[in-house]
Amino acid sequence: MADAFRVGIAGLGTVGVGTLTILSSRANELALAAGRPIKVTAVASRDRARDRGIDLSGFAWFEDPVALAKSPAIDVFVETIGGAEGPAHEAVKAALAAKKPVVTANKALLAKHGAALARLAEQNGVAIAFEPAAAGGIPVIKALKESLVGNRISRVSGIMNGTCNYILSRMEAEGLTFAECLKDAQRLGYAEADPTFDVEGFDTAHKLALLTSLAFGTEVDAEAIYVEGISGVTPLDLKMADELGYRIKLLGVAERTAQGIEQRVHPTMVPKSAQLAQVMGVLNAVSVLADPVGELTFVGPGAGAGATGSAVVGDIVDLARGGMVATFGRPSGSLDKAVRAPMRQHEGGYYIRMQVLDRPGAAATIATRMAERGISLESILQKGARDRVQNGASVPVVLITYATHESAIAEALAAIAADGVLDGAPQSIRIER
Amino acid sequence: MADAFRVGIAGLGTVGVGTLTILSSRANELALAAGRPIKVTAVASRDRARDRGIDLSGFAWFEDPVALAKSPAIDVFVETIGGAEGPAHEAVKAALAAKKPVVTANKALLAKHGAALARLAEQNGVAIAFEPAAAGGIPVIKALKESLVGNRISRVSGIMNGTCNYILSRMEAEGLTFAECLKDAQRLGYAEADPTFDVEGFDTAHKLALLTSLAFGTEVDAEAIYVEGISGVTPLDLKMADELGYRIKLLGVAERTAQGIEQRVHPTMVPKSAQLAQVMGVLNAVSVLADPVGELTFVGPGAGAGATGSAVVGDIVDLARGGMVATFGRPSGSLDKAVRAPMRQHEGGYYIRMQVLDRPGAAATIATRMAERGISLESILQKGARDRVQNGASVPVVLITYATHESAIAEALAAIAADGVLDGAPQSIRIER
Repeated sequence: MADAFRVGIAGLGTVGVGTLTILSSRANELALAAGRPIKVTAVASRDRARDRGIDLSGFAWFEDPVALAKSPAIDVFVETIGGAEGPAHEAVKAALAAKKPVVTANKALLAKHGAALARLAEQNGVAIAFEPAAAGGIPVIKALKESLVGNRISRVSGIMNGTCNYILSRMEAEGLTFAECLKDAQRLGYAEADPTFDVEGFDTAHKLALLTSLAFGTEVDAEAIYVEGISGVTPLDLKMADELGYRIKLLGVAERTAQGIEQRVHPTMVPKSAQLAQVMGVLNAVSVLADPVGELTFVGPGAGAGATGSAVVGDIVDLARGGMVATFGRPSGSLDKAVRAPMRQHEGGYYIRMQVLDRPGAAATIATRMAERGISLESILQKGARDRVQNGASVPVVLITYATHESAIAEALAAIAADGVLDGAPQSIRIER
Repeated sequence: MADAFRVGIAGLGTVGVGTLTILSSRANELALAAGRPIKVTAVASRDRARDRGIDLSGFAWFEDPVALAKSPAIDVFVETIGGAEGPAHEAVKAALAAKKPVVTANKALLAKHGAALARLAEQNGVAIAFEPAAAGGIPVIKALKESLVGNRISRVSGIMNGTCNYILSRMEAEGLTFAECLKDAQRLGYAEADPTFDVEGFDTAHKLALLTSLAFGTEVDAEAIYVEGISGVTPLDLKMADELGYRIKLLGVAERTAQGIEQRVHPTMVPKSAQLAQVMGVLNAVSVLADPVGELTFVGPGAGAGATGSAVVGDIVDLARGGMVATFGRPSGSLDKAVRAPMRQHEGGYYIRMQVLDRPGAAATIATRMAERGISLESILQKGARDRVQNGASVPVVLITYATHESAIAEALAAIAADGVLDGAPQSIRIER
């Protein structure tokens, strides 16, 4: 059998330890699959004293991940430190410059520096593998880079944040508020103490940026993504969605349009019959619409030591076999500059909920402002005083529009707000048909 | 850029033509992904005169696929002829002996000769790629061979025959009989003139045999699979399933048990909340339960020129890049001999429908025979005379059992039949919980 493939792992948190555990427990099977033993030779972490529940005595120890990245004792550098800047960024650059392939779970790093790092990798004859960075244990990166290479992709959409999906699933099932479910998610370890990054959609946006690049052959462009989170979603919204035959999901969506690539992250009403609507709790899912294959949907765990470790190990074995697939599936010079498409006509229409001051003429004002922008209303629902979100002198009013443009909705809502008939900001949720 | 990767395609039916179409329309993108041009140089088919809607004038023409397989003008042999024996088998052997990798969509060939062909490939330093052979456009072979290599798999299950899923979906939605839906499926081109291979579960069994080998590291053993089709499923069964909260799907299931690997294909009641229950019409789906990643489900088109061509092209590009993954994911000498596990305790219990002669004591006889084998009944339902399957002097009786053993059910049903209280054979459907 060939020489061992020597692995260096920087970062010994959940993902690093999950990876070490798999590499140790499945050593025989991995050697058979790779055609050579896979052997961790060195790790990097600052705190040597902390008990991580595994034996680290057989590995060389580096306090500095950059030193590990440059070490001649490793054939692949596995980065599980996290963060778009600082040690993770420096160490990945150092590894690539030393002509070592990199495996990383770091979506923030790749969303920000992916295009530059892919060029650096290419200049050094190596590549970056990042299966765990988009949907954890779901092998969607490999599907886009390799399996679907014969297809022209028109749309990628997905539920890529387990925290948000857990909160929305519980709000729906139990009629709870966002705040109540967030607290439970924090207690169960599904949400961070500062949940902003997850619940406001930024984590989903980072992941979407990577899928977009792979799906459309464009340079990563996370800045172009329209991002809206779930903190404004109320129990009434979920109840109304249910009555209308929908579930509310935080979707990341990238679509090919005549103007370029449209990328957006926002709460979305998804028909209950759709595959993505069945994905509940902390699960993730990604759907790809491609020609000629049609629509594929991948569902599975998006986070955690086991799911992420599984994806890291898959990447390591690919590299150990000598596989070499360009970081974003093709030479970085051939990636198109991303052309940003504006949010355009939304074919499914909009659900709009506003707290309207309970006085004569308010409904007429709203209907007029909508009509002025050419927005047709499918229905107007005024929820009565018994509703739990009922709020003193204002009542919730829900509008369902037919297909219209993003800009028309924005203008109409601004005009209605200026008319002084609203209590607070309206919540609009795009409907997928 | 490196030399072109030269492709020879044997068989110019749906799959062959679908593959040629993609290779031509996406030539630029494929060259970027593979790092070299991919060029069809030769094809093999008997009938040169037939119009296939594409220009074949640029390719060398072989009447004999074995001659194409041996031709020095190709780097990879793509077999889309079909059939477990004859030209497909001879040509694949010839290609491997000539040290050419093979891409094939031929599940019958691999289900029967997979272990021997994998050895032959290995002896010649090449491999067989067969992404299209299990679930068409769904990249589940690559997931099992590569992405999930860090996992110990305990179960693979799936809907792998679009004809059956189409028939069951329509029977459920419209209350039609099997025969009515089959006729429509034939008219729409979803079923063959002789549908036995699909509707009696043999196609699913061939596909399952391949997934089992990859999931459990065992030699392909299609002979070991318990196979039961959907032709005995009635509208009453679907109606009862619906009332109980289930859908009926033809599942292929392979599970790791203490006794070995259990493989079975049969109609199954799947809870409506399960991912597989959402898969309707001609779609396919495969679920994999693995440690530590958890459960992954892949949904997509399982057949047709586009789906199959997409999978063939993915395999060709992998080979063009120089990728080399063993046919069944590891050296064939390291594949375990499959140890066949008997059908064992079925945790979800059984749905059993029988036509019972309408005379005193029949129900008591049935209940007694069940009790003698230690089978506990969750419920007994007797459907009245208004039911459409009501049949003269007999009435349908439906039993739902608690968890019990396959052998106990078989013995009890044989005893009930011997008691002479049944009109025709009973239909039993396993329930998944």
